[in-house]
Amino acid sequence: MALIVQKYGGSSVADADSIKRVAKRIVDTRRAGHDVVVAVSAMGDTTDELLDLAHEVAPIPAPRELDMLLSSGERISMALLAMTIHSMGFEARSFTGSQAGMMTDSHHGKARIVDVTPVRVREALDEGAIVIVAGFQGINRDTLDITTLGRGGSDTTAVALAAALNADVCEIYSDVDGIFTADPRVIPQARKLDHVSSEEMLELAANGAKVLYIRAVEYARRHGVLIHARSTFSTAEGTYVLGEGMKNPRESEGAAMEEPIVAGVATDLSQAKITVSGVPDVPGKAAEIFTVVAKSGANVDMIVQNVSAASTGRTDISFTLPKADAASALKALAAERGGIGFDSLQHDDQIGKLSVVGAGMRTHSGVSAILFEALSTAGINIEMISTSEIRISVVLRADELADAARAVHTAYGLDSEIEAVVHAGTGR
Amino acid sequence: MALIVQKYGGSSVADADSIKRVAKRIVDTRRAGHDVVVAVSAMGDTTDELLDLAHEVAPIPAPRELDMLLSSGERISMALLAMTIHSMGFEARSFTGSQAGMMTDSHHGKARIVDVTPVRVREALDEGAIVIVAGFQGINRDTLDITTLGRGGSDTTAVALAAALNADVCEIYSDVDGIFTADPRVIPQARKLDHVSSEEMLELAANGAKVLYIRAVEYARRHGVLIHARSTFSTAEGTYVLGEGMKNPRESEGAAMEEPIVAGVATDLSQAKITVSGVPDVPGKAAEIFTVVAKSGANVDMIVQNVSAASTGRTDISFTLPKADAASALKALAAERGGIGFDSLQHDDQIGKLSVVGAGMRTHSGVSAILFEALSTAGINIEMISTSEIRISVVLRADELADAARAVHTAYGLDSEIEAVVHAGTGR
Repeated sequence: MALIVQKYGGSSVADADSIKRVAKRIVDTRRAGHDVVVAVSAMGDTTDELLDLAHEVAPIPAPRELDMLLSSGERISMALLAMTIHSMGFEARSFTGSQAGMMTDSHHGKARIVDVTPVRVREALDEGAIVIVAGFQGINRDTLDITTLGRGGSDTTAVALAAALNADVCEIYSDVDGIFTADPRVIPQARKLDHVSSEEMLELAANGAKVLYIRAVEYARRHGVLIHARSTFSTAEGTYVLGEGMKNPRESEGAAMEEPIVAGVATDLSQAKITVSGVPDVPGKAAEIFTVVAKSGANVDMIVQNVSAASTGRTDISFTLPKADAASALKALAAERGGIGFDSLQHDDQIGKLSVVGAGMRTHSGVSAILFEALSTAGINIEMISTSEIRISVVLRADELADAARAVHTAYGLDSEIEAVVHAGTGR
Repeated sequence: MALIVQKYGGSSVADADSIKRVAKRIVDTRRAGHDVVVAVSAMGDTTDELLDLAHEVAPIPAPRELDMLLSSGERISMALLAMTIHSMGFEARSFTGSQAGMMTDSHHGKARIVDVTPVRVREALDEGAIVIVAGFQGINRDTLDITTLGRGGSDTTAVALAAALNADVCEIYSDVDGIFTADPRVIPQARKLDHVSSEEMLELAANGAKVLYIRAVEYARRHGVLIHARSTFSTAEGTYVLGEGMKNPRESEGAAMEEPIVAGVATDLSQAKITVSGVPDVPGKAAEIFTVVAKSGANVDMIVQNVSAASTGRTDISFTLPKADAASALKALAAERGGIGFDSLQHDDQIGKLSVVGAGMRTHSGVSAILFEALSTAGINIEMISTSEIRISVVLRADELADAARAVHTAYGLDSEIEAVVHAGTGR
């Protein structure tokens, strides 16, 4: 008998029929002899509808009240889910974030979990109940005000509960079968990964993969929680996200596995590029620029600085940032043009980012060469490059991103037919 | 500067515009220099919609989870109302029933308030905030589970808060101007009452008047809370409900007022009549019948037993009860026919009840004679009669109820033109 934490997102509980399907799944897990704790999101578009209502009555809703409002969404879904399970003959008890002991700091709308004291959850489990917990929400430890955890908050709720309860696994359910070597909508040959390391998962999530939220993966990694990303619509196993030293639950004891060098290819069309042209090539100018950008609230991703032209003593600095942040960053920079002393600003929102992620890069040479060669053969031009220990990212034209991803996916031997031969031993 | 508790029902906060109107009203009260605590119901039909959802997923929703579900309705309305007020430049803070210290017993769906500890409400008031509290809900003092207070729960929330905070007045807002001498939809000549005693109000509410809920009036009476029933859509004063020894706030000090004998005429079409025919006229039979009826869950109102026919030694017993309870009461009685020994059952759902209520009945004779004479003159037949110290109720044919009410309203001098002359001194 294991303790299993499950998380179901809004699309999995969008209506009465979906809720019944999820309830059956939970009951099946219970019937298999496991203790079950469920973190659930608000039904379908509830959160967006509540946000719309808020903006109808208040241009800038008070953050405390907005959290009070939004937290009602999970209250509805969790109560419905609990009563569905109850009507199937199983004891089920729902708890709000506050009741489940999800203590946070005071940052309304993006609160961070500071402590989890699931006393009532544990009691309910001890009494044989299935426990349903409201995702996405907590309570400010100091003021006892309701808080919400921000985007992907329900994933974080599930992982934090799994950590606090020392659960055997945290199953994150969504409408896809697991983590793929690439977005299957872009690359039909993408394969589902049997497992992925949490550091790889973090890089994939940060660079466009949408199945899991970075915060939840980070939390799981820090607290040693085993994540299993799988589909609400299938009983097939999904993808395990393994922290350091964790064993893949599907591997037999002591089996030595050859890990692939590259875990996956991520694509991202959500970024824009800003180029600051004619920056005086003197120390401190980059710092000035990025201080201004940071103050505008923008989250800079990649940065490239050209070699200075000796004749002018000036250089160009390009950086990428979320498209939504571009306008305020441009405005902030334009206002400081005199102080910084650059010539002009260019804005480009037709870029795409392609990232290749793999822990094997640490120990294998030549990984980047495959990327550059594949893109070159496909006739695709690279505009920016950035790397981490286990990732290579390149910026390309947006309309070439899909072609680039397919070429790279094939070049690394990730396509399903090829892979079935090369990595047969790993069960992939 | 006074402390004013206000209650707004679901129709007063049905959409964004309504919420803004209510917010303006609250802010106006604050601007007038008063401390304001607001109890608010769920928006429009939210509660019914949530109930429908519950019945879609569970035939008989678990009571604990149903309360968790329904309580989210007020959470939405109160947060929206608080952020609306906030955006108007006033500090506003919303609290759930639990946060407001609304402690109840464990009866989910119809919990009773056992204690009110509004520590956080008081703190927020001391800090200058307008306080918005979720109506209709509380927390089980023993298990810390969310409870709801049942029908009219938000009125009770408001009155209980007013009592605990020692408020100067509890204003109950609805879409009517106050308490009338009769239902204005039935009798256009009905006048708004300037004030009514709480015992009269209890009788009126128990016999068909729908503006205030009995429970809230009872609570107010027991705890000495002054209720002011008034309209969301008008700034005109409504009707004060005065407990024992309370002075009408609109009367000048020491003014001796002539109270009218009759406060109002209530009509009720929600009851049915069951007649048990041929009951053996031996001691204990009535007890047997009403034990069976009570066990079926029915709430009996009026009872009439005919004089026994000497020849048969048998009698008929008739009683009224809510229409919705009739089917199960009939079924329960039919099952006990042999044991009780009656001949047959008749069910009549075409009855109407007319009640005349007035504290003056205690000290004035001849009050009932006016009623019977008016009905006789109008050619209306009386089927059942019951009286309390300050009320006379009669059961009539449903289709004669409106005519009967008009005749009686006129006979007691309650019609607006007449009244304006007779009771001019009381300001009515």
